[in-house]
Amino acid sequence: MGESFGAWTMGDDAAVLPYVSSVNIACGFHAGDPATMMKTIQLALKYNVKIGAHPGFQDLAGFGRREMQVTAREVYELMVYQIGALAACAKVHATALYHVKPHGALYNMAARKAELADAVAQAIYDVDPTLVLYGLSGSELINAGRQKGLQVYQEVFADRTYQEDGTLTPRSDKNALIHDEGQAIEQVLAMIKRGKVTSLQGIEVDIQADTICLHGDGVEAVQFARTINQTLKDQDILVR
Amino acid sequence: MGESFGAWTMGDDAAVLPYVSSVNIACGFHAGDPATMMKTIQLALKYNVKIGAHPGFQDLAGFGRREMQVTAREVYELMVYQIGALAACAKVHATALYHVKPHGALYNMAARKAELADAVAQAIYDVDPTLVLYGLSGSELINAGRQKGLQVYQEVFADRTYQEDGTLTPRSDKNALIHDEGQAIEQVLAMIKRGKVTSLQGIEVDIQADTICLHGDGVEAVQFARTINQTLKDQDILVR
Amino acid sequence: MGESFGAWTMGDDAAVLPYVSSVNIACGFHAGDPATMMKTIQLALKYNVKIGAHPGFQDLAGFGRREMQVTAREVYELMVYQIGALAACAKVHATALYHVKPHGALYNMAARKAELADAVAQAIYDVDPTLVLYGLSGSELINAGRQKGLQVYQEVFADRTYQEDGTLTPRSDKNALIHDEGQAIEQVLAMIKRGKVTSLQGIEVDIQADTICLHGDGVEAVQFARTINQTLKDQDILVR
Amino acid sequence: MGESFGAWTMGDDAAVLPYVSSVNIACGFHAGDPATMMKTIQLALKYNVKIGAHPGFQDLAGFGRREMQVTAREVYELMVYQIGALAACAKVHATALYHVKPHGALYNMAARKAELADAVAQAIYDVDPTLVLYGLSGSELINAGRQKGLQVYQEVFADRTYQEDGTLTPRSDKNALIHDEGQAIEQVLAMIKRGKVTSLQGIEVDIQADTICLHGDGVEAVQFARTINQTLKDQDILVR
Repeated sequence: MGESFGAWTMGDDAAVLPYVSSVNIACGFHAGDPATMMKTIQLALKYNVKIGAHPGFQDLAGFGRREMQVTAREVYELMVYQIGALAACAKVHATALYHVKPHGALYNMAARKAELADAVAQAIYDVDPTLVLYGLSGSELINAGRQKGLQVYQEVFADRTYQEDGTLTPRSDKNALIHDEGQAIEQVLAMIKRGKVTSLQGIEVDIQADTICLHGDGVEAVQFARTINQTLKDQDILVR
Repeated sequence: MGESFGAWTMGDDAAVLPYVSSVNIACGFHAGDPATMMKTIQLALKYNVKIGAHPGFQDLAGFGRREMQVTAREVYELMVYQIGALAACAKVHATALYHVKPHGALYNMAARKAELADAVAQAIYDVDPTLVLYGLSGSELINAGRQKGLQVYQEVFADRTYQEDGTLTPRSDKNALIHDEGQAIEQVLAMIKRGKVTSLQGIEVDIQADTICLHGDGVEAVQFARTINQTLKDQDILVR
Repeated sequence: MGESFGAWTMGDDAAVLPYVSSVNIACGFHAGDPATMMKTIQLALKYNVKIGAHPGFQDLAGFGRREMQVTAREVYELMVYQIGALAACAKVHATALYHVKPHGALYNMAARKAELADAVAQAIYDVDPTLVLYGLSGSELINAGRQKGLQVYQEVFADRTYQEDGTLTPRSDKNALIHDEGQAIEQVLAMIKRGKVTSLQGIEVDIQADTICLHGDGVEAVQFARTINQTLKDQDILVR
Repeated sequence: MGESFGAWTMGDDAAVLPYVSSVNIACGFHAGDPATMMKTIQLALKYNVKIGAHPGFQDLAGFGRREMQVTAREVYELMVYQIGALAACAKVHATALYHVKPHGALYNMAARKAELADAVAQAIYDVDPTLVLYGLSGSELINAGRQKGLQVYQEVFADRTYQEDGTLTPRSDKNALIHDEGQAIEQVLAMIKRGKVTSLQGIEVDIQADTICLHGDGVEAVQFARTINQTLKDQDILVR
């Protein structure tokens, strides 16, 4: 959420908020700006939804979705900076951050590379050790968070397909995104109730679903959020 | 200080630090980046010097020195964001900010315009009411800080000339900067001991010198810092 | 047109193109990026519409709509750079620029300030003296263009209100934009047929309508373009 | 050259210019800005040195030295944009570009990856087929340029060490840069006279030296330029 920038709008944050329990807010490097960050925090407060930092690469032109050759030190630094910026925006609204989830290419690189995962976890720990780390289920990011002593939530995706190694299908692949609501719901339920996801290759992969991610910029974002939320309620699964 | 950016270096911060008691650190909008911010904090800690946020306009190309048509709300937001970013960098070094001083065109506009001054003061107060506000002596910024209940330090400049209304001569004027060491020292002593500064127009103006500013990017920065520091010591004026 | 940036979309350029004879394409400083510039040129070629450079201030965060304290030299330089960038994008599509129109705050400042107007005109002339300059009707920009020997088109606005001195009502004023189609059409016809526009203050001002501007980012852009185009056809006024 | 940005200076371009026959000028994406580009062109004209475009990744914070996950299309677009911008700066100084050399990570990626090399060569060809392409000796970039029908100069480096596959030692390796003047000169002479370079691994590699690169931002830039220039003169090797 909060991925608008200046005169440009992205996503319909207000419409998605009634159906989620926490949101990741862009922090100005890949998207977002101080005004958007504050507006998004106000919206989240209105809907009583937890807020988290969503730091990304300093690549506005690429929306932080292009992998970059960064050092662990650079990752540590950009994490601290962006978490701090959003934390201050939260503070002036008399609230505080609940969690941190790296964005885009940073998220994916930190899921695979232990050194970058460690930098992410260390940055969060150093800024505030009570922050929860959201990371790709089964990834290096989850390992690194646990090693630092952070509380970690293993994250699964409602609107993305998986590879047989448990990673997300890259966005460059035409099958990366799930546009079919039925498929999204089926995937979500299998992940929550059976701890399994069926990869694009047709193989079931073990997965731990502590939190479900839905992208706010997708065209189906509002509809998916509403339907998934309702489905979970119908199945007596609490969203919190 | 901390006004390097990426591959570009500005100023010789390490050489100036022995002669000052507090530094203003750029926060990434007009200059500075997360790596530079952290390095500068480490240096300041080494020399036991207080650190402050130096937020500016989001104008890297113009180094934050070009006045921009901003709203009070925009000023509030960019202040909160940048103070928060630097505060987090301080926190991961087990230290904290002592003060805030707006940079460049933002500083000058907030000195003149009550509405912007108010936004600056409110932002500081909302992020952390114990932060000291450094503002141009006798300016709207000082008034606004006092009204909010912030501790304020009235700032005077060792290396800038003054106008008869107590404002700084704009940088577009060829006489804006003081390059002569003797002139700088004389101006500093008159401001501290007599509460007066002689404007470019030859008229003495009342001024309150709680803190003396020296620009870290000037070619004479190191030499001026050393000499002024020594002169003050010789006159039994404590730099603290 | 072409005011999308990276992952962010602005305006529905394809829907507006059938109703206009020339478009101003953002050049990457206030909006636009190389990909968007090329895509917009391709669209314009498809609709056989003339293309012009729309250079603005280097202020992505403010969409080039914030006045900035720039020198005439800076204006000259940013004009040359951006015109050149778009001209190359045109060349690789085997076409060429027809005109140049400064954007946003740069347009407004150059309309008022002779020194900046002169820099704009000189930059266009130096890059390519056959380019047409679009400038606010009756402004310093028109004077400067004529003095350099450029062909100038006096521009009027379909979707903006006017002040009694012939300038546009600033966007900070709530009456700056015209949202009513009837009002827009009435204003356009009065400007074309009688050379007059009625200011917000109720006074008629002389105006020369060589080209009519419609903003591509307005919510009513497509509808206004279609209706104005049809109205002009109905009145036997040729759009070319 | 021309790798200053805004208030930040890099390199001592004026001191290097007497010793070179062509310069690569940054075009605003990884470094450089319109003012610096024009100033550098003026300097080059003064020393009668050929000018070329030095386009890089849109990564000011990383100085274009971080490899990024770009598509061939993105490379084509950023090349066209930046060449066009510099070409216009040249035109307003009544001169024209002679060559194009991609910068930093873009140069290295295009040296290895045929698809990106092809995009670089196509962009140059489409903007102006008479421009010379400077590329790493023996690289995919040279192949791509030849296939398009561009004139190519195979480039060798005076101040960088080589790997046994003929690529440059990455900057992340502490032995990437040559700081010893004697070593630089020896390497240059072996490359020119024998068509060989000794890699860090001690193996001689075939190399074609049509043009010799020296980085303007290195601390030894001026001294190396002067000495290499003199050595070549002494050996009756014409620098042109």
